[in-house]
Amino acid sequence: MDFEIIDDGTITDVPGFYAGSAHCGIKKRSKKDDICIIYTPLETVCSAVFTTNKFAASPVLVSKEQLNKGRNIKAVVVNSGIANACTGEQGYKNAIKTIELTAKLLDIKKDEIIFTSTGIIGKQLPMNLIEKGLELSSKSLSGNGGHAAAKAILTTDKIKKEIAVKIETEGKDIIIGGIAKGSGMIEPNMATMLAFIATNIEISNHVLDSILKEGVNKSFNCITVDGCQSTNDMVTVQANGESKIKINKNSKYFEVFKEAMFFVLQSLAKKIVSDGEGITKFIEIKVVNSKKRKDACKIGKAIANSNLFKTAMYGEDLNWGRINAAIGTSDVNFNPNKIDIYIDNIIIVKGGIGVEIDQSKAEAILKNNEIKFIIDLNQGKEKGITWTSDLSIDYVKINAMYST
Amino acid sequence: MDFEIIDDGTITDVPGFYAGSAHCGIKKRSKKDDICIIYTPLETVCSAVFTTNKFAASPVLVSKEQLNKGRNIKAVVVNSGIANACTGEQGYKNAIKTIELTAKLLDIKKDEIIFTSTGIIGKQLPMNLIEKGLELSSKSLSGNGGHAAAKAILTTDKIKKEIAVKIETEGKDIIIGGIAKGSGMIEPNMATMLAFIATNIEISNHVLDSILKEGVNKSFNCITVDGCQSTNDMVTVQANGESKIKINKNSKYFEVFKEAMFFVLQSLAKKIVSDGEGITKFIEIKVVNSKKRKDACKIGKAIANSNLFKTAMYGEDLNWGRINAAIGTSDVNFNPNKIDIYIDNIIIVKGGIGVEIDQSKAEAILKNNEIKFIIDLNQGKEKGITWTSDLSIDYVKINAMYST
Repeated sequence: MDFEIIDDGTITDVPGFYAGSAHCGIKKRSKKDDICIIYTPLETVCSAVFTTNKFAASPVLVSKEQLNKGRNIKAVVVNSGIANACTGEQGYKNAIKTIELTAKLLDIKKDEIIFTSTGIIGKQLPMNLIEKGLELSSKSLSGNGGHAAAKAILTTDKIKKEIAVKIETEGKDIIIGGIAKGSGMIEPNMATMLAFIATNIEISNHVLDSILKEGVNKSFNCITVDGCQSTNDMVTVQANGESKIKINKNSKYFEVFKEAMFFVLQSLAKKIVSDGEGITKFIEIKVVNSKKRKDACKIGKAIANSNLFKTAMYGEDLNWGRINAAIGTSDVNFNPNKIDIYIDNIIIVKGGIGVEIDQSKAEAILKNNEIKFIIDLNQGKEKGITWTSDLSIDYVKINAMYST
Repeated sequence: MDFEIIDDGTITDVPGFYAGSAHCGIKKRSKKDDICIIYTPLETVCSAVFTTNKFAASPVLVSKEQLNKGRNIKAVVVNSGIANACTGEQGYKNAIKTIELTAKLLDIKKDEIIFTSTGIIGKQLPMNLIEKGLELSSKSLSGNGGHAAAKAILTTDKIKKEIAVKIETEGKDIIIGGIAKGSGMIEPNMATMLAFIATNIEISNHVLDSILKEGVNKSFNCITVDGCQSTNDMVTVQANGESKIKINKNSKYFEVFKEAMFFVLQSLAKKIVSDGEGITKFIEIKVVNSKKRKDACKIGKAIANSNLFKTAMYGEDLNWGRINAAIGTSDVNFNPNKIDIYIDNIIIVKGGIGVEIDQSKAEAILKNNEIKFIIDLNQGKEKGITWTSDLSIDYVKINAMYST
């Protein structure tokens, strides 16, 4: 059994899900949409994972409270441009107010709504604009609204990130669709990232939580652009049961559903890295034969977050010494004399020491947009993957100029 | 009792210390000196602190072994251009060979020599050039050689880093002099940095070790340019007893000596940051009223190593939300609602929330070359300081192009 990717798929490819979006004016300088609603009239089971940043923004706090009250989340509201983070009591009140306004507009209960924000930290939401935006968004709700919603949640992202997959069954097809945003401050547990996933299965809180947790660990928690963690990170999955197909550990479609969900989460995670601020290279770092999976991930992150490694990649320079130096800084126990490093399957370090390689071959690999490293610790059987980007002149330009 | 800074002071201002340097050709493209010897014919007590990177370079391993054999180190030999890191058995042999050659030239014991290297990782030392360089350096040993030695240890550094201070006593003056190099990969425990300190006091191993350890914690371990730790970091102090003034906890000059030594270490540490790759701003982050000193340092580092904070500083943009976000990522326990942040004594965040400030005032401060932040956690009585730089377009350019 297998799943297939839906051409140009998005979140509203999932039956019973609608999205509406609008430009209300939070993004002052552009006419781009800056608010959206993802909505299903059906009863759902919703799971979510949030930032662990201690300055978690009001929308994160409020959304956590909402999920504690109940898991039947019919509407997810998102504004972009202002993050409503570090905004204190007023920021909290504004989040609650937004939920109240949405409940009225959609004629659903307040407890059935999650609201989140992304953008600049420290500014209050302009509630008159939010109110107008909610009205416009709710009026534009449609089964084709996913693409516009995928755009409305972006900030400095250059391209929208969306995907949908289909599992054929004996009854109705199972569909999983999702949208996400990056694009700087990308490093887990989790990243400045939002991802909203919808699916039409029936599932229990417990099973959905466990699938999402494992999926996020294997996707969004594997990516890093600049090692900075945001105040607003959030991933949600809403399952509205439209297909009437029940997923639990004993059901026929359990394994393929999990696989398809992980694929959706990983696709969105990789799209976030590919659209990282100023990125010129997408880099995969696979650490293999470690004692623990955690060790492999730590070493991958140590390399991925080394500015010296990242700038070398930008300069298309096979400076493997910087990889060794980064590995050596991690708090993982390993034998430096046992480490082998490969770039696109060519060995460049053997037993911790550089190997003479054909310089023209190396140069050709480094010119690619996608580069794969394997770090073999030769000490165990576990592995972990990290996806990251280079550090370019444009990253500095974008982030030196963002808020002004 | 007090100490004073010696005008244009350097390591050879310390009586009984000589330095010699030469261009042997490791730095191929320039005619700059790339090897030097710091030497005293007197018996010494030497203390040192080394990198904790697990890929510690051969010179670090060899120098540790030397110090384990004995603490009477008369000569410190340094080459720049090649780090002799990740060079395996051959790299180790080359380090031993260099020590043997030096012992013959200076007619001292092998155990009286430390040898270290800085530069590109993964290349073997050209031993014929080293041999020539040692000869030339030993011939040029002089009591004025400190300035040239300070230049010979540089790699991508733009300016030499040296200092000397004097404490007047009833007998001979106590002098402490030092030289150092940065300049990228600057983050402790310790940094890509080398620092060599000389002084003319008499002291026991034990007391010197304890002063150096405390001093490094308050100086080199407080700095970070890019969060990357090198394979070759090393700080040494040689005390040759020339003044006949004995320093121990009961001696009259103990406190002033410690103070002067900390001043020398901190001055060199700050000079390293000021010459950080591509730096346009020197930034001091003082975290106060923490429960533990360690917490204050962790929070300072979390801010200092945030690429988003660093690029905002480069862009002269008071994006305090990025400071909050960075603090929130550290694994320190604190109450986000109690945090106050000041820039040059103007409050910008009160209780975790932004304060309205005069924008023109903020802009004027951000145009300065030196910027001071205070982060008040309002939860204890400890404090810690971090010195760092911004992240500029030039940092990326320098590091994208270094080894090619």
